Amino acid sequence: MTAKHDGRRIRLGMVGGGEGAFIGAVHRIAARLDDRYELVAGALSSTPDRSARSAAALGLDPSRAYADFATMAREEAALPDGIEAVSIVTPNHLHAAAAHAFLDAGIHVVCDKPLTTTLEEARALAAHARRSSLVFALTHNYTGYPMVRQARDMVRAGKLGTIRVVQVEYAQDWLAGPFEDTGNKQAAWRTDPAQAGAGGCIGDIGTHAFNLAAFVTGLAAEAVSAELTTFVPGRRLDDDVRAMLRYAGGARGGLWASQVAVGEENEVRLRVYGTAGGLDWCQRDANSLSYTPLGGVRQVLTRNGSGATEANRRASRVPAGHPEGYLEGFANIYSDTADAILAARDGLVGQDRLFPSVDDGVAGLAFIEAAVRSSGAGGAWTPL
Amino acid sequence: MTAKHDGRRIRLGMVGGGEGAFIGAVHRIAARLDDRYELVAGALSSTPDRSARSAAALGLDPSRAYADFATMAREEAALPDGIEAVSIVTPNHLHAAAAHAFLDAGIHVVCDKPLTTTLEEARALAAHARRSSLVFALTHNYTGYPMVRQARDMVRAGKLGTIRVVQVEYAQDWLAGPFEDTGNKQAAWRTDPAQAGAGGCIGDIGTHAFNLAAFVTGLAAEAVSAELTTFVPGRRLDDDVRAMLRYAGGARGGLWASQVAVGEENEVRLRVYGTAGGLDWCQRDANSLSYTPLGGVRQVLTRNGSGATEANRRASRVPAGHPEGYLEGFANIYSDTADAILAARDGLVGQDRLFPSVDDGVAGLAFIEAAVRSSGAGGAWTPL
Amino acid sequence: MTAKHDGRRIRLGMVGGGEGAFIGAVHRIAARLDDRYELVAGALSSTPDRSARSAAALGLDPSRAYADFATMAREEAALPDGIEAVSIVTPNHLHAAAAHAFLDAGIHVVCDKPLTTTLEEARALAAHARRSSLVFALTHNYTGYPMVRQARDMVRAGKLGTIRVVQVEYAQDWLAGPFEDTGNKQAAWRTDPAQAGAGGCIGDIGTHAFNLAAFVTGLAAEAVSAELTTFVPGRRLDDDVRAMLRYAGGARGGLWASQVAVGEENEVRLRVYGTAGGLDWCQRDANSLSYTPLGGVRQVLTRNGSGATEANRRASRVPAGHPEGYLEGFANIYSDTADAILAARDGLVGQDRLFPSVDDGVAGLAFIEAAVRSSGAGGAWTPL
Amino acid sequence: MTAKHDGRRIRLGMVGGGEGAFIGAVHRIAARLDDRYELVAGALSSTPDRSARSAAALGLDPSRAYADFATMAREEAALPDGIEAVSIVTPNHLHAAAAHAFLDAGIHVVCDKPLTTTLEEARALAAHARRSSLVFALTHNYTGYPMVRQARDMVRAGKLGTIRVVQVEYAQDWLAGPFEDTGNKQAAWRTDPAQAGAGGCIGDIGTHAFNLAAFVTGLAAEAVSAELTTFVPGRRLDDDVRAMLRYAGGARGGLWASQVAVGEENEVRLRVYGTAGGLDWCQRDANSLSYTPLGGVRQVLTRNGSGATEANRRASRVPAGHPEGYLEGFANIYSDTADAILAARDGLVGQDRLFPSVDDGVAGLAFIEAAVRSSGAGGAWTPL
Repeated sequence: MTAKHDGRRIRLGMVGGGEGAFIGAVHRIAARLDDRYELVAGALSSTPDRSARSAAALGLDPSRAYADFATMAREEAALPDGIEAVSIVTPNHLHAAAAHAFLDAGIHVVCDKPLTTTLEEARALAAHARRSSLVFALTHNYTGYPMVRQARDMVRAGKLGTIRVVQVEYAQDWLAGPFEDTGNKQAAWRTDPAQAGAGGCIGDIGTHAFNLAAFVTGLAAEAVSAELTTFVPGRRLDDDVRAMLRYAGGARGGLWASQVAVGEENEVRLRVYGTAGGLDWCQRDANSLSYTPLGGVRQVLTRNGSGATEANRRASRVPAGHPEGYLEGFANIYSDTADAILAARDGLVGQDRLFPSVDDGVAGLAFIEAAVRSSGAGGAWTPL
Repeated sequence: MTAKHDGRRIRLGMVGGGEGAFIGAVHRIAARLDDRYELVAGALSSTPDRSARSAAALGLDPSRAYADFATMAREEAALPDGIEAVSIVTPNHLHAAAAHAFLDAGIHVVCDKPLTTTLEEARALAAHARRSSLVFALTHNYTGYPMVRQARDMVRAGKLGTIRVVQVEYAQDWLAGPFEDTGNKQAAWRTDPAQAGAGGCIGDIGTHAFNLAAFVTGLAAEAVSAELTTFVPGRRLDDDVRAMLRYAGGARGGLWASQVAVGEENEVRLRVYGTAGGLDWCQRDANSLSYTPLGGVRQVLTRNGSGATEANRRASRVPAGHPEGYLEGFANIYSDTADAILAARDGLVGQDRLFPSVDDGVAGLAFIEAAVRSSGAGGAWTPL
Repeated sequence: MTAKHDGRRIRLGMVGGGEGAFIGAVHRIAARLDDRYELVAGALSSTPDRSARSAAALGLDPSRAYADFATMAREEAALPDGIEAVSIVTPNHLHAAAAHAFLDAGIHVVCDKPLTTTLEEARALAAHARRSSLVFALTHNYTGYPMVRQARDMVRAGKLGTIRVVQVEYAQDWLAGPFEDTGNKQAAWRTDPAQAGAGGCIGDIGTHAFNLAAFVTGLAAEAVSAELTTFVPGRRLDDDVRAMLRYAGGARGGLWASQVAVGEENEVRLRVYGTAGGLDWCQRDANSLSYTPLGGVRQVLTRNGSGATEANRRASRVPAGHPEGYLEGFANIYSDTADAILAARDGLVGQDRLFPSVDDGVAGLAFIEAAVRSSGAGGAWTPL
Repeated sequence: MTAKHDGRRIRLGMVGGGEGAFIGAVHRIAARLDDRYELVAGALSSTPDRSARSAAALGLDPSRAYADFATMAREEAALPDGIEAVSIVTPNHLHAAAAHAFLDAGIHVVCDKPLTTTLEEARALAAHARRSSLVFALTHNYTGYPMVRQARDMVRAGKLGTIRVVQVEYAQDWLAGPFEDTGNKQAAWRTDPAQAGAGGCIGDIGTHAFNLAAFVTGLAAEAVSAELTTFVPGRRLDDDVRAMLRYAGGARGGLWASQVAVGEENEVRLRVYGTAGGLDWCQRDANSLSYTPLGGVRQVLTRNGSGATEANRRASRVPAGHPEGYLEGFANIYSDTADAILAARDGLVGQDRLFPSVDDGVAGLAFIEAAVRSSGAGGAWTPL
């Protein structure tokens, strides 16, 4: 994964990610890691004052620190050296409007997940993106881990045979108490239906789990039976979700996501079992992947190690045994998107792209809405 | 865990467990490990010839090698030194009749799981056992692991606060292919509804998972939404089950059991999360238990190590760091049952007993039947 | 690993192992586990009163509870149904005299390690054992683990090529403080040169590590450069030993044993690296063995699982995934010794035996004495 | 760990790190990760043509792509916006001359390890650096891991009491065969005494292990007894080293480093045991640290998690549970160095600095030379 710019980096803007935000800083490091982007503009906060202060802290030219995304889209589009791509890292309810504005301005979009707050919005945005021919990346960043990509390669290569069982989970504990009531800004918007949408835990981390399973298996979920629970008194959205899934072709899945699992920091795990083999990956041990062929011995594949697939090697920067982590995986999404943007410059489209797209965002919202309905209907199997 | 017999061991008989059986040998080792029992009689096979041969191989007196359990119950009851207890290790469909016969004969019963093949049978057997005042142990052997017992102690001591989430699973792969068609006797009866009952995977290992969760949490399951799947073509019972559970008091559970999870040997894991802490135990690392208090640091508790509870220490034989395993856990069920049998001799009953009883067997059948019904009804929440 | 007695068990006696002892109870469980032995006589303590009380607690016939080993050897040899084998589980300084007495009486010997307190004693005992044609087993019990035996098989099969590097360690912390001064009987004799010999930590656990490396690799150690340290003030023997080893053929080894490694319960680990592959085993995860062929992918071999060698399967009792532990490994030593005793009855000798013998005991004492000398000589390389 | 530049980044140059190099790219990512540096000049290769091509690939101004480090030092020093710091990432034998040149030019130095090829050179360079008052960082990058820093904090806070035992190791297998003969440039110079110095494995990775132990424990090594071995036929430097260490205050250490340990990718592990507790850290699980207080329960501390020390939090970028890895640890060295450089601008010196310095380089060479002498003298204890 080496820098491949032609003497200049892709000019990047950012919406959201100002003071007090968390994921904005992650996006900036991810964009910078492989030296493929240069951050040159921002509408970093909905508060103009904070926006300007945040821009200064990042060394942006004050003339390119905007008060709102609409102005930014319009003015940057008019500059000869305006931004070529934008990262949208606001709370969920602002994604759609911002994304439409930049697509209208002919600017490529990197958007945090979930794509929007409703399936209807998501579909409209997807249609817009398709019409535009612009690159649209959705940061389901776990798909950027080299071993997750190797898992996908192995499924495609038939190492698992026909998939039967998919178990995916994402457990954390940072919302085990009513932290939205104690001034925690991250907790506040994530548990507010107006900003987060209809899903709390399911939207924030459940969609990551759902997407991870889809990315690796390539299977489409057809129906869900779910139960969403709110454990913390007074909370307005779910903080625990469990779901049974039926995939096209007969595979069955189990998904569990929780924000009240005391002791779990960010425990993401995917297991896939087929007629010919089984796979096991978890974020805690992100640099390895366990694979067992039917009747054979368990193998521990490693990042950039023996037995690494091409996608694994391409997503790696350092030799096997030296761990790469969350930021490197996130950077892989950004750097692959950079490749797509450079290709788009040259009029190339439609290549096989590893980064999640606006269509994954639509699938995520379909999952959220179907699960919410199923849970409300006593666990009835609900089509996606 | 030292031998505490008063100069003589409890005289034990066995029904089933002859040549070609698997679990019978495990029961015998478990009974022998702490020197609390002496095997003196058996109806080891339904084939008289094989029964006699098996008895000889075990060094039994030929006069106490019976052709069937009914004869054995009757004749042993009439001997001055007849058996005091019996182990029933046949396929499921024979448990009930054998157990009734020995209870009628005034003989304590250790029975393999699941208790019976129907809930109705289970209830009748439980009623009989209660009337008899005899000891009745059901070998849900995972409850014999010292760290599982410590987990239960910790829940009772309030270390987890109010339980919110229970995740339990039991995955294996030995039925990933149609091995019932290849002369594998174990596979044949376990996939035959006439011998196994209405549940395949759910009865064979799902009930272990269900019982393990109940043992540790002390929570009663109130309703289940389940999906049972048969992946191997031609198989007559489920080989994969996933279920969502609602426990009394509002806790929510997820249960997954599979016999087609390629690469999993016997992966049993229980995680419990409450308002004050979380626990994680798995059989693969049976000698440790992970516990994290809310807001605190993860602790790795060990068998017989620092921080061990009384139940942990009592269930241990060797110092911390030297692993004890499946057979030792199984032996704990037998040795605790021996204590209960000795107490019964002295007219003592009703003490707190750690080994699973006939009531756990009833609960297991209730789970199987409710899950089968839920699965047939599109995952509808079904009371237990 | 099934019972293979011809209707009767081998009659066993025990020297040491009375009240307050630790390892005696382990030997008794190990002997009993596979139903190959029956304990019928004992000289369980050097205090006659305690000896009788211990015998009664074990259900021995009072006439066979002896006040001392010499009487026991003499009288049992004269009985028509006298013991066929004896377990010697006293402190180290008593091993030699007891072993000589039973060899003289024509009784097979199972002896705890280290064999004796001096190399000279060890050599004399080995000579006696060889002259006697009796079975002599030394309980370096870690060699009884199925995966350790698989490791040995793999080395012999050439899976590692020529061995270059051997790293072995045994770390524990139970002597991190001056527990010999607080009435801990185990600590007291193990730190007393009169009872333990010239080595403290090196004799008690260092010899286990040394033997484990020799068992798996088949290599003879030719020279040692060692440093023995006593960290706990007032202690009379070493509580930490580190050594560099030169093996025949050019392999190099590192050995570390410590009784002051706070946090380590009984951490035994062996790694072996050759020109064609590497192996890694540790007691904490005793049911698996990691193997990586040169340029290949790491494989996780399991007890009784896919890829298990014959020795692994033979040393296993339950299916893969259900852990077996320390007691089962110990029992393997006893049960293999039972096979040898039965073979000796039939006049068979000289077969390939997996259990450690008196010769391993000589090698252990050679290691202890050479390491003590090297440490005293500033780490000078000292031949074994 | 957020960017803290005052509107501009530190101007950085690089010596070495052109096409075909490995560690140069790592240094560039590490410098870029927190946005504290801007690479603006380079003498990237000793071949002018390759140097220019490498500079172009990195987007450097051609006027600042130098043919050699001496010219670069001289010309950059004369520029108003010349580099403020330089990274030296050449083979070992070129470090000293380059470092002297940039110190002479008043430019801060970041140098790869080992510092030089001889202790004498190292001392001269250290003296120069001290006279200069410039910042000098040596990239013993494992000290940049948050959990390694927490380990150091815990030792300083007395959590281990008086340290008794230090076990450190670094095992890898990439030189298990004669890859220096097959055109592998990395292998070639690392096994060439003229470029690498007197130590092969000991210099390349043994010094990392030695430094890691010193960083965490704060102990000075006083003497070493070592054995260096060359396993691969024809190799000119050692590829395996084992050493016993005596530390000031009585602690004893064991160090093992190997480049022929088949199956080990880059297995770095440090264990430290004291009178009051024990610590265990390994790179494979870099985001956690195991700590056990004497008589207590093992705790698993995590990066940025509960129980994190200030140094752990400061070295972290993302929440606990999301792994950070090798590049982030390397970046911590660069970013801390950036703080020191900014402080130097303001005339501040002498603060507590976490990054390794030129003095650590001197200690590393002292270790190499003493170990080589000890190994040649039959393992004689040799003062450092």
